[in-house]
Amino acid sequence: MNLNIVLYQPEIPQNTGNIGRTCFLTNSSLHLIKPLGFLLNDKYLKRSGMDYWHKIDVHYYNSFEEFYEIHKDKRIFLTETFGEKIYTQAKFKIGDFIMFGKESSGVPQYIVELLKDNMIRIPMIETTDRSLNLSNSAAIVMYEALRQMNFPSMK
Amino acid sequence: MNLNIVLYQPEIPQNTGNIGRTCFLTNSSLHLIKPLGFLLNDKYLKRSGMDYWHKIDVHYYNSFEEFYEIHKDKRIFLTETFGEKIYTQAKFKIGDFIMFGKESSGVPQYIVELLKDNMIRIPMIETTDRSLNLSNSAAIVMYEALRQMNFPSMK
Repeated sequence: MNLNIVLYQPEIPQNTGNIGRTCFLTNSSLHLIKPLGFLLNDKYLKRSGMDYWHKIDVHYYNSFEEFYEIHKDKRIFLTETFGEKIYTQAKFKIGDFIMFGKESSGVPQYIVELLKDNMIRIPMIETTDRSLNLSNSAAIVMYEALRQMNFPSMK
Repeated sequence: MNLNIVLYQPEIPQNTGNIGRTCFLTNSSLHLIKPLGFLLNDKYLKRSGMDYWHKIDVHYYNSFEEFYEIHKDKRIFLTETFGEKIYTQAKFKIGDFIMFGKESSGVPQYIVELLKDNMIRIPMIETTDRSLNLSNSAAIVMYEALRQMNFPSMK
């Protein structure tokens, strides 16, 4: 798989559905850290991504600890509005993990500490309302990573 | 403004709301060609983008002809799944127009003919289900254009 996208406790089913669709279309895996803010057979998820859902390589974890125990040897980027490095300055490689916090509040501080060497941000205008839609943020960072890799197996 | 995003007869309010949000956060203008598939005071638009709506530089047109008459001297990119050039191969400039067709069926053939010299596509795996979410497609192309411009007035 090209990339591994990690969603920490996602709350809005349409976002997870759209990110799943982007994963499918880019040959990437999706990692979902529970609790999720919705049921996976929820009608909204169905509407926004369910046609693709059974084709997506999805992995579920009951907690961040369960996820981290398995993947701590991998390179895990964390996308946060306060990340020090702009996402285009990162040098992405096939197999990288890219993590996104929950829509309302990102990730807890202990995860920020753990992943602080690989924190990235997406530039925006200066405003108090600094928040792109979660699925848009994921699409932006994923496609920059794929651009750097020259879009493997994609046409 | 950095970019001009044009939506041709968008059907799904959440997509337009999210694209409006991305326009606001990137100092870009939004151009909406009617008919729209929703009311602009629709509760879904409110939910997905309305906090930003009054801050967005939005322009409305009753038809493509009305839009084109005003902007035909500008460079207008058309994003389509069958575009010949990959979007990262385009050299974007401040003020460029980037157009996206409606979710269900893109744009009519006469618009394809008119804009065929500036058609771009987003690479995906080969599948019969070639469709990223519209707001994700817009975010991907917009941020590639902004990357090329070195993210003007963004932090």
